[in-house]
Amino acid sequence: MELIRSLDEVRRFSHQARGQGRSLGLVPTMGALHEGHLSLVRKARSEYDSVVVSIFVNPTQFGPREDLGRYPRDLQRDLGLLTPFKIDAVFAPDARAMYPSGFDTFVDPGAAAQPLEGALRPGHFRGVATVVLKLLNLVQPSTAYFGQKDFQQAMVIRRLIEDFNLEVRLVLCPIVRQPDGLAMSSRNAYLSTDERVAALALFRALRRGEAAFCCGETRTEAIVDEMKRAIAAEPRLQLDYAVVAEAQTLAPAAVATAGSVALVAARVGSTRLLDNLILAPPGTNDADRLRQVEIRNS
Amino acid sequence: MELIRSLDEVRRFSHQARGQGRSLGLVPTMGALHEGHLSLVRKARSEYDSVVVSIFVNPTQFGPREDLGRYPRDLQRDLGLLTPFKIDAVFAPDARAMYPSGFDTFVDPGAAAQPLEGALRPGHFRGVATVVLKLLNLVQPSTAYFGQKDFQQAMVIRRLIEDFNLEVRLVLCPIVRQPDGLAMSSRNAYLSTDERVAALALFRALRRGEAAFCCGETRTEAIVDEMKRAIAAEPRLQLDYAVVAEAQTLAPAAVATAGSVALVAARVGSTRLLDNLILAPPGTNDADRLRQVEIRNS
Repeated sequence: MELIRSLDEVRRFSHQARGQGRSLGLVPTMGALHEGHLSLVRKARSEYDSVVVSIFVNPTQFGPREDLGRYPRDLQRDLGLLTPFKIDAVFAPDARAMYPSGFDTFVDPGAAAQPLEGALRPGHFRGVATVVLKLLNLVQPSTAYFGQKDFQQAMVIRRLIEDFNLEVRLVLCPIVRQPDGLAMSSRNAYLSTDERVAALALFRALRRGEAAFCCGETRTEAIVDEMKRAIAAEPRLQLDYAVVAEAQTLAPAAVATAGSVALVAARVGSTRLLDNLILAPPGTNDADRLRQVEIRNS
Repeated sequence: MELIRSLDEVRRFSHQARGQGRSLGLVPTMGALHEGHLSLVRKARSEYDSVVVSIFVNPTQFGPREDLGRYPRDLQRDLGLLTPFKIDAVFAPDARAMYPSGFDTFVDPGAAAQPLEGALRPGHFRGVATVVLKLLNLVQPSTAYFGQKDFQQAMVIRRLIEDFNLEVRLVLCPIVRQPDGLAMSSRNAYLSTDERVAALALFRALRRGEAAFCCGETRTEAIVDEMKRAIAAEPRLQLDYAVVAEAQTLAPAAVATAGSVALVAARVGSTRLLDNLILAPPGTNDADRLRQVEIRNS
């Protein structure tokens, strides 16, 4: 497993791979790897002989009052977690290489980037879309793997790929959860024991919403009310949003159907947490839920 | 010479060429070809066995009150002009293929896109940068050829290529002029005989500015005054701007030096005309002037 730090080097690596007829899978991450990231690496490894994982805490996607400074960084630990997967390379550039002096061209994503995280974190998806485009251009993978956890991000990237005519396939992988249901997130490291208990209400809210949907409720307000009640029952949580949205645009769904997405965001202490669930009939597994979204998007 | 209309087809063409080890030169145009465009095609042909010319009147770079509707379009004439060059393909997509329903991701260019044309045509360079990125991604050329005539555009594209880590070389070719000095432009077709005479004052203004520079004047205000006087002497012209700018950023140059760029824009009747000149010592040819700019940019 090669550790690549420079842009020239990752270009050379990519040229060499493609020159030898090997296509690449890319897993873009901000490090602080957990089982969620590793499930993407596993998926990429199952589809490609050559896999690159990028580790880059991208400053342009953090707002001025956000947690860029304290975001967990431990490259040695991340490399240790990746070793068993026998991937080809970890690309971990530094911020000055990615954003040299004079840098000032950005991707301006459209409607899917406006609501929810886009409204609460102005400029966030502009930074995300810009860095992902740069990483795709540098590594030139055939497929890039993203987690369903950041569902809105994945929809913004899907739109970017289509609108800019990029030749890359996007694969979305299901959320990985702790046994008690908490969605894996690098930001879970911020939580105290107490806060971690409170955080469970996010997934509880999603399951309540889905239970209503499975009982035949299709009015989104009614489903959202269920979700909000579950969040409100946990006084340590401050709700940012609870919605049932169209997968592609993230606009509020007029009516909840299979393939609509329930999304929730809340703060506990100084930590923001996200979770989501693609609505489906009872017994539908996560992969089939994602397939619902992909069918709707195409 | 193949005429390619669809995005899938141009992708196939590009894959096939690169699969056979042929790298491509791309000349992006809006059609209504003239000697300026043909000089780019000639240059591309001298450097690449395989050349693609794109012809696309890009709606996103026109403002709501601009000349998108009346912009000259004559594909058959353009194909006739290209035939002698034995290029591989003309890519002439239609607007619905380039901007299908739901399209809403744009490139947001930075400082170089703000002054001059950027200030007078809000959104213009956003549209230009977006379509150029799309064309580069579809055709995947090794080199793209642009004319110095649209100097600011070329600087915006140069920044785009660098900031988004695109693997393409930008080649800038000198302005082609009529024998009397008028810069070749598709919009010259709009001019009446009378207006065409008036239009000569643009190049006259640039030469006056350069004459002052060559006499040792380095104060940009003094050079700009010379340029403005030449425009003012032609009552049919309405000045939009006359500046001496830094090549890379298009910001006003503090002091004029070799490699600073004099730019002028003016309206005659309902037609906007642009021209520019890279300042240089007397006797410097156009290619060497462009080299000054490239040296400064790297």
